[in-house]
Amino acid sequence: MAQAQAASGENAYRITAELTGQVKEAVQAQDQDCLVALLDALHVADIADLFEQVDPELRRDAVALWGRHFDSEVISELDESIQEELLSQLPRERLKEVVRDLESDDVVDLVEDLDAEQQREVLSALNDVDRAVVEQSLQYPEESAGRLMQREIVMVPSHWDVGTAIDHMRSETGLPEQFYHLFLTDPKVKFVGMASLGRIMSSRRETRLLDIIEEDCRPIPATMPEEEVAYAFNQYHLISAPVVGEDGRLVGVITIDDAMNVLDEEAEEDILRLAGVGSESLYDRVFDTATQRFPWLIVNLATAIAASAVIDQFSEAIGMMVALAVLMPIVASMGGNAGTQSLTVAVRALATKDLTGSNAWRIIRRESMVGLINGLVFAAIVGVVGGIWFSSTSLGAVLALAMIITMFAAALSGILIPIGLERVRIDPALASGVFVTTVTDVIGFFAFLGIAAAILF
Amino acid sequence: MAQAQAASGENAYRITAELTGQVKEAVQAQDQDCLVALLDALHVADIADLFEQVDPELRRDAVALWGRHFDSEVISELDESIQEELLSQLPRERLKEVVRDLESDDVVDLVEDLDAEQQREVLSALNDVDRAVVEQSLQYPEESAGRLMQREIVMVPSHWDVGTAIDHMRSETGLPEQFYHLFLTDPKVKFVGMASLGRIMSSRRETRLLDIIEEDCRPIPATMPEEEVAYAFNQYHLISAPVVGEDGRLVGVITIDDAMNVLDEEAEEDILRLAGVGSESLYDRVFDTATQRFPWLIVNLATAIAASAVIDQFSEAIGMMVALAVLMPIVASMGGNAGTQSLTVAVRALATKDLTGSNAWRIIRRESMVGLINGLVFAAIVGVVGGIWFSSTSLGAVLALAMIITMFAAALSGILIPIGLERVRIDPALASGVFVTTVTDVIGFFAFLGIAAAILF
Repeated sequence: MAQAQAASGENAYRITAELTGQVKEAVQAQDQDCLVALLDALHVADIADLFEQVDPELRRDAVALWGRHFDSEVISELDESIQEELLSQLPRERLKEVVRDLESDDVVDLVEDLDAEQQREVLSALNDVDRAVVEQSLQYPEESAGRLMQREIVMVPSHWDVGTAIDHMRSETGLPEQFYHLFLTDPKVKFVGMASLGRIMSSRRETRLLDIIEEDCRPIPATMPEEEVAYAFNQYHLISAPVVGEDGRLVGVITIDDAMNVLDEEAEEDILRLAGVGSESLYDRVFDTATQRFPWLIVNLATAIAASAVIDQFSEAIGMMVALAVLMPIVASMGGNAGTQSLTVAVRALATKDLTGSNAWRIIRRESMVGLINGLVFAAIVGVVGGIWFSSTSLGAVLALAMIITMFAAALSGILIPIGLERVRIDPALASGVFVTTVTDVIGFFAFLGIAAAILF
Repeated sequence: MAQAQAASGENAYRITAELTGQVKEAVQAQDQDCLVALLDALHVADIADLFEQVDPELRRDAVALWGRHFDSEVISELDESIQEELLSQLPRERLKEVVRDLESDDVVDLVEDLDAEQQREVLSALNDVDRAVVEQSLQYPEESAGRLMQREIVMVPSHWDVGTAIDHMRSETGLPEQFYHLFLTDPKVKFVGMASLGRIMSSRRETRLLDIIEEDCRPIPATMPEEEVAYAFNQYHLISAPVVGEDGRLVGVITIDDAMNVLDEEAEEDILRLAGVGSESLYDRVFDTATQRFPWLIVNLATAIAASAVIDQFSEAIGMMVALAVLMPIVASMGGNAGTQSLTVAVRALATKDLTGSNAWRIIRRESMVGLINGLVFAAIVGVVGGIWFSSTSLGAVLALAMIITMFAAALSGILIPIGLERVRIDPALASGVFVTTVTDVIGFFAFLGIAAAILF
């Protein structure tokens, strides 16, 4: 019977501190039955989350206590860094069983991140056929359709009818756990078309499969980057898609859950990159995390020093009027923010392919106008604030003028820099921030202090 | 026959400037056949993208010229702001046909964003049954499972066997275009379980459906927020999930493509919110965009003024040593960056539920350590740079000390503020940035200038 419990409330799908506490108690008491009962009630994905969230020592002890009840699928759900840790803890024999339980795409996913020795060990657990399949997948470039696809395909000759296909499936024992289409091939295993199970089931037995295949089905080349694959699934609402080699032969199938995973990872990567964080994980060690964040900070230091050098040019003016030092961060900060707004919209639009050669100029004009409008509005505000604060109309005017220039420059660089980076094939999410901050800082300080020096003295 | 053209290369799935140019020419020449031929070759999702990317005038003319060939499904694929524009351009009769062609979830999606008058017009196009269904869905809260689900469900009595189900489907004409599960209900339409088509097709005719339903299938309450729904699909690799009312009755089904859409939107929202951009679209008007970005900029102005006020407290010290004004942005900028790194990781981890009550303290300790390590490293660097630049060991020491304090405070506030906001149910993606920037700016300037004033004079 299905466990048809309605998930109630917002926290239904979440590892609670209470549950973690119970697991901890069971492990400390070395109560295997209790631990097995607790974990059996959870989905493998939730068990993986639980393992990720507890202390490494507790995780090690829990895996040891769980012992032979260990569910292989948990491995696929774990974060990379924890996968490796856990694999090295499993007894050799148990490791072999775990690997044999997994589907080909999960083994590929697991193996590609391991070091050479662990990789050999995992592959040696497979029988010759499975190992050949995995090794074949590993021939494709990293992060390509070939790595993402699974090799278990429900393939039938293209001349079959519905009845033959159903009879074939009823007699077949090795079908994948989840599948949604039958793939039709010619005698040379070239892809001919695919028919959805829904369509097949609602057709009469004598219907030819060729008559009910999906229109407009574009096979995915095995070398296509996974990012493009995810885009295609999202854009065309695909559920499963055939993957073909260069010769048009059907080599695998990608299902939407894999694509969804990639889409999720891509979005995560963009978010983290925009903030100058690499592909770090919450489970990395402190030292690794500090090291990963270092490059962006050092680049930021360089741009900050460049901005300071600009200020240094005007040290005489600041010496004569300290109010300049007090007000100058306002201009730079507003420019930085306006620039970040523009660049984030641009980076996202490039990632989703909403910003293309067709509309780039229109979007650039649009961003410039937005920058100009907000520049004017904030010029008025800071002009008044600055003027009153230091009882100087001319200081207010300088601040206002600098604000217009900086916010316009910020908006323009916020759109032009990502587009430019994309053109030269550098990931705009990764690099735009540095350039835009440099531009807004340098222009902000230069405009404010330069105009001040020119007008006030 | 399927159009089995392998998509070759990176640009295969993209609207090219060339294509846009051809469409433009066809519209200008009022060549309907040519336009229809160009658009017929495209997927509806690509046609929608094309319409989004061209000028509003060209879009209007293209829709007019496309005329009776207009494909209803294009509407569902369009960005909201363009949907509205296009609906108001369609002749009343054509509008009705368009609406009738759509599935219930697409109509709900369309209708919920329209103004009252357009909403009435669209609903009046439907027959009584369809209208009742759509109006029922609109009763559920915005962004809930009830709004997301489609009402077309393939439902069968739970006592049926495989053969009966297949015969039923063969005789049924109104099946949804895509479906992957049969939903089993009792006589009161309460949800009992679901069986995958793959499982059904590979079972013998006399197999009872109840014996092949999926284990561990949790129905989704209609009031569950769509964000949670997307999480469940992603976490548990679901393809379709039953939606039930409070009484346990099956009211609809959500499929993974809808969930993928939500996941995509949520990630987009987080990215934009982190940059202080609302739910703006590339297709909004300049003035609307400027207005939407204004609130964050005004908040940023307030924090910038607060930082200036801190500097103002030390104007005497700056007057005595202008080097302080030159160097102070370095401290604040580094703090701002380190804080942004921490907060982005925290916001993302909260969104993906990797950061929970179970591991919060460990992550907080980890971030503090990272902040401290990088603080020490950059203290050494800027201490030397500042000391050499202004030939003053004590100025270098002041800079180094301020850097340690600021980067530690940045890391700590970058993790504590998002967690705190989540606790009081404010979206951390939306508000964390402001708080963290304020903390890093104020602490940065205060630490540097305060220590300088205390030590140097």
